[in-house]
Amino acid sequence: MTVDHADRRARLAAVATREGLDAVVVAPSPDLAYLTGYDPMLMERLTLLVVRPGGEALMVVPELERPLALDSAAGQDLDPDRIVGWRDGADPYALVAEALPRTGRVAVGDRTWASHVLELQRVAPGLAFEAASPTIGRLRSVKDEDELAALRRAGRGADETFRAICGTRFLGRREEEVAADLAELLVANGHRRAEFTIVASGPSSASPHHEPGGRTILPHDAVVLDFGGELAGYYSDTTRTVVVGEPPVGLAEVFAIVHEAQEAAVRAVRPGVTAQEIDRIARRIIDDAGYGERFFHRTGHGIGLEVHEPPYIIEGNDTVLEPGMTFSVEPGIYLEGRFGARIEDIVAVTADGVERLNRSTRELQVVS
Amino acid sequence: MTVDHADRRARLAAVATREGLDAVVVAPSPDLAYLTGYDPMLMERLTLLVVRPGGEALMVVPELERPLALDSAAGQDLDPDRIVGWRDGADPYALVAEALPRTGRVAVGDRTWASHVLELQRVAPGLAFEAASPTIGRLRSVKDEDELAALRRAGRGADETFRAICGTRFLGRREEEVAADLAELLVANGHRRAEFTIVASGPSSASPHHEPGGRTILPHDAVVLDFGGELAGYYSDTTRTVVVGEPPVGLAEVFAIVHEAQEAAVRAVRPGVTAQEIDRIARRIIDDAGYGERFFHRTGHGIGLEVHEPPYIIEGNDTVLEPGMTFSVEPGIYLEGRFGARIEDIVAVTADGVERLNRSTRELQVVS
Repeated sequence: MTVDHADRRARLAAVATREGLDAVVVAPSPDLAYLTGYDPMLMERLTLLVVRPGGEALMVVPELERPLALDSAAGQDLDPDRIVGWRDGADPYALVAEALPRTGRVAVGDRTWASHVLELQRVAPGLAFEAASPTIGRLRSVKDEDELAALRRAGRGADETFRAICGTRFLGRREEEVAADLAELLVANGHRRAEFTIVASGPSSASPHHEPGGRTILPHDAVVLDFGGELAGYYSDTTRTVVVGEPPVGLAEVFAIVHEAQEAAVRAVRPGVTAQEIDRIARRIIDDAGYGERFFHRTGHGIGLEVHEPPYIIEGNDTVLEPGMTFSVEPGIYLEGRFGARIEDIVAVTADGVERLNRSTRELQVVS
Repeated sequence: MTVDHADRRARLAAVATREGLDAVVVAPSPDLAYLTGYDPMLMERLTLLVVRPGGEALMVVPELERPLALDSAAGQDLDPDRIVGWRDGADPYALVAEALPRTGRVAVGDRTWASHVLELQRVAPGLAFEAASPTIGRLRSVKDEDELAALRRAGRGADETFRAICGTRFLGRREEEVAADLAELLVANGHRRAEFTIVASGPSSASPHHEPGGRTILPHDAVVLDFGGELAGYYSDTTRTVVVGEPPVGLAEVFAIVHEAQEAAVRAVRPGVTAQEIDRIARRIIDDAGYGERFFHRTGHGIGLEVHEPPYIIEGNDTVLEPGMTFSVEPGIYLEGRFGARIEDIVAVTADGVERLNRSTRELQVVS
């Protein structure tokens, strides 16, 4: 896809102006990739993009990596003299400080390392630093058509992965074997690489972020499969719950509640609704069924260049949903020592409602 | 290898006491892996280890990931009630603040994200935050026998990789093809994965961090090969310069100077010498030969759980070398538009001198 990074930076500058920020600084991270197309290895030497309202962006880079930066997408729409190299032994923070005002508010990209933040605070004591996610997150959370296309392809690949895994054997195999199959299937279905493959069986399914291990899958186990990978820079993330033969006592009831909550929350997605309202809708159904205490995580998270990014679907987040926003809807119920169930789809807000980017069956699948 | 993480934390607390620090906080990173054996995925939810002189360590983790933390090495030597979970919607920073003093100095792990640092500063305005690398780096830079064994194995695997690549064809192939071969060879020679594979040919060899691309390697090209990978958590990193047939005019002279500088610097390594003295020794030889301006990077960097870590071998670093420290010695000369040459070995400081962890030939190899 061809991306207009200069336009993204201009929109960032406009948002920064509206929010009264004097500058936004961004280290190597998905933020930097989004704003420049440059995505170098994470290293101790400072690379930092400075965006100021009304000025052209500046990127400070280690002299050693300047040829890389010039060769990257950043070199195509930033003037070469706005990509400033610093040599080992020089103070790159002083270089950044020269590009910043003496006083005012500066937003710092969330993933910027503490070592850099603390040095910036040292060289620019008159500035107040704050997290940039409310600013950059606002831009990044609304996907353009190319981004949506990548997320759709990733979603389809994850759906195919689920269909394929349901045809494989679970009984008698170890969680980590099924996880390895999921990773291979994600790649076979268009992903560049698998990012995570949670396989949580039996009592472990009651732990939402269970690491698949050596446990052998037994008859009547609930198995929560939560997996995703990267495709063209964008991520998939879907969860389905399956059962090995006859479900354990109580699973059908719990699953039906999770299913209802997920459906209701997805159907409520449309422009103008707030993120926390989506959380409340899922949570109310689970609360009313008496399992409120057993649904102890937020309902979802934005997704794009990162697996987790704004908007977070959680009480207290009054972000108003806009067309182009993409996030997960993934309520779950977890009964310690017994089983858990979760259903997760990625959805996109459309002009007048919602598009699901995951479409594999959400019914409780019986596997062998 | 069996690691005594509690002992590492006790030694960190002792160093912190000596330096007048009231606490050290560490987010998921090689620092956290070093201090606890816990190395979770990087996520927006806060995971933070708090080490205080005189107290038992505390780790704040997302409730969702608490089972993972308890199952990890961290769960083996931290009391379960010192691994404190927080639920979505709660304020984990307030939880950390309760474990910190009201006033004093707190060191923050270098790779801690800005989003976390800025929130900590908000909830604990009476604390002065500083980078933890001088403190944790001091510990991590001195490797124990198991760590040295892992670094030796990684070094041998890199040496075998160099020997094998010298037997392959360079002429007429693209840099990225040779880079892919290097990556495969690193894995074939014991690495879990390749981390970087610089193949810089002809004029590109004058760019120290050149990204291998579509350039086809030509007769008389100098080719700088700088590659490494991860093995048992530890990294290899070695550089050799080869030439395709007859060397271009001037390469032999430049190479001889680099070779002499590298030899002299390595031979100077022993306990009691400072990091900057090693840099000066390499630099003086290159300066005296008239190429000082063409050696525009530091002489080396520490290596271990990270490819780059303290001690940095650079002017201004008066760290005194101690037995067990491991770092690269990698002078180079880069003539823009013509060629570059660099030789890099990882070395370990011994009780009375130096041990090279790379032993493949350092002579200019002629390849076909």
